[in-house]
This record gives sequence, structure tokens and C-alpha cells, in this order.
Amino acid sequence: MTQQTSAPRFRTVGDGTGLSADDTFTREELQLASRNRGMPLEGLRYAVTPTGMHYLLVHFDIPEVDATSWRLDVGGLVSKPLSLSLDELRDRPAVTHTVTMECAGNGRALLNPRPLSQPWLLEAIGTADWTGTPLRGILDEAGVDSQAVEVLFTGRDRGVQGDEVQDYQRSLTLDEATRGEVLLAYEMNGEPLQPQHGYPVRLLVPGWYGMTSVKWLDRVDAISHHFDGYQMERSYRYRQSADEPGEPVELIRVRSLMVPPGIPDFMTRARLVSAGRVELIGRAWAGRLGISRVEVSADEGSSWSDAKLDARAPEFAWRRWSFEWEASAGRHTLCVRATDTEGNVQPVEQPWNIQGMGNNMAQRVEVIVE
Amino acid sequence: MTQQTSAPRFRTVGDGTGLSADDTFTREELQLASRNRGMPLEGLRYAVTPTGMHYLLVHFDIPEVDATSWRLDVGGLVSKPLSLSLDELRDRPAVTHTVTMECAGNGRALLNPRPLSQPWLLEAIGTADWTGTPLRGILDEAGVDSQAVEVLFTGRDRGVQGDEVQDYQRSLTLDEATRGEVLLAYEMNGEPLQPQHGYPVRLLVPGWYGMTSVKWLDRVDAISHHFDGYQMERSYRYRQSADEPGEPVELIRVRSLMVPPGIPDFMTRARLVSAGRVELIGRAWAGRLGISRVEVSADEGSSWSDAKLDARAPEFAWRRWSFEWEASAGRHTLCVRATDTEGNVQPVEQPWNIQGMGNNMAQRVEVIVE
Repeated sequence: MTQQTSAPRFRTVGDGTGLSADDTFTREELQLASRNRGMPLEGLRYAVTPTGMHYLLVHFDIPEVDATSWRLDVGGLVSKPLSLSLDELRDRPAVTHTVTMECAGNGRALLNPRPLSQPWLLEAIGTADWTGTPLRGILDEAGVDSQAVEVLFTGRDRGVQGDEVQDYQRSLTLDEATRGEVLLAYEMNGEPLQPQHGYPVRLLVPGWYGMTSVKWLDRVDAISHHFDGYQMERSYRYRQSADEPGEPVELIRVRSLMVPPGIPDFMTRARLVSAGRVELIGRAWAGRLGISRVEVSADEGSSWSDAKLDARAPEFAWRRWSFEWEASAGRHTLCVRATDTEGNVQPVEQPWNIQGMGNNMAQRVEVIVE
Repeated sequence: MTQQTSAPRFRTVGDGTGLSADDTFTREELQLASRNRGMPLEGLRYAVTPTGMHYLLVHFDIPEVDATSWRLDVGGLVSKPLSLSLDELRDRPAVTHTVTMECAGNGRALLNPRPLSQPWLLEAIGTADWTGTPLRGILDEAGVDSQAVEVLFTGRDRGVQGDEVQDYQRSLTLDEATRGEVLLAYEMNGEPLQPQHGYPVRLLVPGWYGMTSVKWLDRVDAISHHFDGYQMERSYRYRQSADEPGEPVELIRVRSLMVPPGIPDFMTRARLVSAGRVELIGRAWAGRLGISRVEVSADEGSSWSDAKLDARAPEFAWRRWSFEWEASAGRHTLCVRATDTEGNVQPVEQPWNIQGMGNNMAQRVEVIVE
């Protein structure tokens, strides 16, 4: 599926380390930021993100897929290979999950030195109602052989990364792939997928960072070995240096974000807030885990106070919180951090890794109160 | 509606000129690029852009509007002020126009020196089916006085720009405001507006750059004078220096863009194309005018060949074109330029202005053919 080439054709900006210690951004980073889109943080007010506000990361191009001729091929180590049309998938049992999805690189542009890639600040998030048929049922129909250990997912988006021509591909262990919540999703918020979200069908793996939920799904193959493609072994690793193997990026880490209060300044996005009581609101999530606590600081993290948590959210979706803040005149730095049901707390200082993955440090919001 | 303050509270990055001669981008520019979103250029394949792919520029925050209590107040110099609910607007005659919209700052990030603002490359475009009731009918109902010369539009988004606290406001002359195609739009692509596109109602002014189509419309006032608010007199001007009044930015200038051929490199976005015949496709538009010609160059603008134009498009929408290119091995710079029905041709070198408005230079696409 991939093809290794001899010498790099695409020369990136920078000194070759893939890092920048500058607080300025390269044209290549801007190109990515102009294509991919974050959810403006005022979108945290919605339990389910309007489709057009949901974050989006497309590695290559959004492919054009003709749904009438499209088939999902299910093969590899199976006793009965399948080739399913969209209507045939829709005829299978349908379930809907409300799922908070986050890009593994969210927060990358806050690191120093900064890994040169899609320069996310905090907006690479969103929550949607995803409808589809459980992958497990389809794998059962196909009859996965006992030698199979992983399931490989191939998308229709094709491009070059690390000088390697590739279709976008990711794998899951058989155990993960057959969890009940993993879907072949064909609807988002009650409508057919928009092209940019994977039309006609995408994989949807609740609790995992977004790279796992392969869009424009084309093939599903049961395989006898660990898939070592680019998006598994070269990208999406927690590494301190380029020459160590590192650990794979998998489940979403605990995080909380707030709707920035008051009104913004156009250029700096700093906030102007009226003195007095201000209700801060936001959402917190932790992949497959629940949220046990959200704390707010109005003094840059020196002291923390508990926010009020709303009633429990859907299993894989964010949970709303609120906090009454008495805003006094002056400049303040608001922070918020969450704790998950296993006791993991968001860091105030961000641990660093060379690809800028899994960043979940406490959000900081600069406000001027008048 | 606006409130002038004494000393700047929001200090922007840079030397104070509002310009940068660097080919790197400031954190403030990145913040804007992370909130606002372009249409990935492969979206040019759609005559009508899927809602979630349409470009979006929000000056301040996306406001939360409760449509059940929302009213459109029509007042000022009218004999019968109106306060209309969404249902009452929907009861008026409805029309749908297919309209290509573009941000006035599209292409700004290609200028040198570069005006520091939303750093658009080429993606600030989109075409949608907008449904609403003609503004003219509503103004007729209200009975505009003979002393009125302009109509002022106030949106619900509020923030600070140029250190001025303001609601987003723009005006049109009475002649422009009463053109038949100007709508109070409540549907985009057959659905209620998404929050980020102006829910529940926005102004829609076909042929004009997007800043005129005020989102989250709150008030419409007939006024006896030229409105001189921030978004009219300070922003959206063609100026060579900050101290000249300049000319207002109004109608969309002729432009053409192509779907970048082949497959992309993730980081550089340069294109890899297979040698042989390649069909280049794209769209061209010119505000209220038609397109008379589209030309393609495969040698960085040294020579041009005519593209094939599709049958005439809707009056305010882009027109499809195609071109058969014989791709030979090597590196090429593809360019495309359009001519409108008044003979205006896109420039190959971009004329400069201090706010980076109305840029329409010919697109350049770097490709490697193998």
C-alpha cells in the first residue's frame, strides 16, 4: 500500500530538526492551519457541536467518493470476505454514540521548542452524534481467523508524508477493534457525513485520539501481524528524540476548556470583562474515563477552587462544568484543569515530546476586567 | 453603538506599523487562522460548497442567539417601525440565490510586506444556496422616509477592534440596500443557518465581499447620513498608507482558482503528479459580473492557454472551467487567471495596499511531475 522513494523531494522549512524555538510560525504551518480547522472555543457552549464547527484534520486531500459505486471491502484473514454497499451497511443494526473527539496534536503550538506540524492551539476538539453499525457485527459476519491479531483500516486519502507515498492507514488490535462502541459511521448529527468528515463512511473509535477514526474508509483487513505503517510507527508516537521508538499515542488524556468570558479584542483575542459576578462555563473530558473534578484558578494557577460539575455526560462525551467568578478590576490569568476518574490531573506545565502529541496542560485565558 | 476608550489596552505584536516583512507569522495571526476557516481548494469541485467547508470569518465571538425571543428591529427613518420574529420573516416571500462569497482579505498572507490581520492564503471562499426574504420588501413595509440615504445593519457580535468597543456594523446606500438580490437570509443550503454563519438571520449581499453580509442581524435602521463606524472608515479601505482616507472596499474582483492536481505532501502541500494528460479544473467568479475568459499557464505565467468554460453559472455564483494539461516530468508552476465581462484581468503581480484588501492575483501551484 505504501511506496518508499529514494531521496526527499519535499524540502520543509527549518533547520531539519523539525522543531522551532521561535515564537513565529512558518508558512508551511500557516498552510496547514488554513486548511484544517479548530472549533472556536465559544462552541464549548453546545453539548453537541454544530457539524460545521467541529474540528477537522485532513492529512492529505479530501477525496471525492461516489457513494453509488463505493464499496467497503472486508478481507484479509477472514473466512468470508465482504464487499458492502452503503445501503447494505445501513441495513445492519444502527446505533448512535455521542463522542468527544480531539486531535492528538491539540496544543502543539503551545510547546517550546515547537514541533513543526499542524500548529494547533486549543481548538482541535468537538463532540458529535455519530451513527453507524458496530464494526464487531461486520467482523463477525466476515468470520475473522484465529491467526488474526490486528485489523487494518485504509482510507481513500492519499499523499506523501515523510517522503513516503501512502494511503492513510491505521490499525487496531483485534481486542480494540471488536469493542462494542467502535462504529462504521455514516451519519454525523443526524445527517450523512459531510465530505470533509469522511463521506460516505468512516471508522469511529470513541475514547481514542482522532487519528484512529480513519475517514473515507475503503478497506478493512484482518492481519496476522502488527501493522508498521507510517501513521503507526513514524507518526503518532510519544518520543523524546527522533531516534527512539517511543510509545504509541492512543487514548485521549484528561482535559478541560472554558468558553473565554467577556468580549474579545479582534487581533490579540485577549478578553475584556465587566467587573462583578461572571459565570465561567466549559466542558471536560477524558477519553474512555469519566471526570471526577474540575478546578478553576483566577491567579495563574497559584490557588484552585472547585467548579460545579453537571450531571454525568454520555460515556464518551464531555461533561459541562460552571464556576461563579467574582471579577475584580485589573488583569487576570484564568486557568482550568480537570481530574479523571483514575486520578490523573491535567499538568500546569506541559511535558514535552518531539511530535507534540497528547498535550493536555491547563488552559490559560488572559482577561482585562474593567 | 460604539465607545471610544482613552489608551490602547490590547498591545499587538510587531513594530507598530501593522506590517511584517518576515516570511514567518505571529502568534496572533495563528490565533486568527485557528478560529477562522478557509475552504480547502479541493472543495472547488463542488458547485455548491458543503456548509461545513464554506469559508468563515468571525470578527469577534460567535454569539448565542435564542431564536424564540430574537426579533429583527427595523427602525430609524421609517414611518412604521417593525419588530419581526423569525416566523414572521419566514412568512414573507422567500427566494434562493446561489452566491459565491469571498473575504475581502483573501490572499493577504501572500503580500510583502504583509498586513498583520487574519492571514488568508487563497481559501477564503465558498458558494452556498442562501434562502431568505428580499430586504426591499421589508423596507417597503416599514416605509423609508425620503431623507434616508443609507441603511445601517447591526450584528450581535461584539468586541474590540482598533481599541474601540463595538457591535459589528456596516451600512449600504439606499440604492444598494434595495437591489432585488439583497436578502435577509435564514437558510444556507436548505437548512437553518449554523450558528457560525449568522443564526438565525444574516444579511446577504450578492456580489460584495463578505464583510457586508452582516451575520447575527439584530437591527436595520434607515439613516440620514453616511455611517462612519469602524468597519466602514477604519477597516475595509483601499489605502497605501494609514493616514490617507482611501477608497471603500465593495464589490468582489475577478478571480479564478484551481483544484491543486495530483496528491499533496503533508507538510509543504506541494503536489506530486503523474506524467501524462491531467485534467485541471477550477472555478472563476467576478462579483456581479460574468466571466469571459479563463487562462492557464504551465510555465509560471510566461505563456497562457485558454481553458474551457462551462455553461453560464447562476448570476452571482462561480463558473466552472477545465483545461487538459500534458504534464511532463520535472518541476512546474501552474497559474490560472480569469477575465471578467468588463475586461478586467487578474494581475500576475499583486498590487499592494496597507490592509491587504481585494487581492486577486493569479494563483500559483507548485507541482512535481514524475
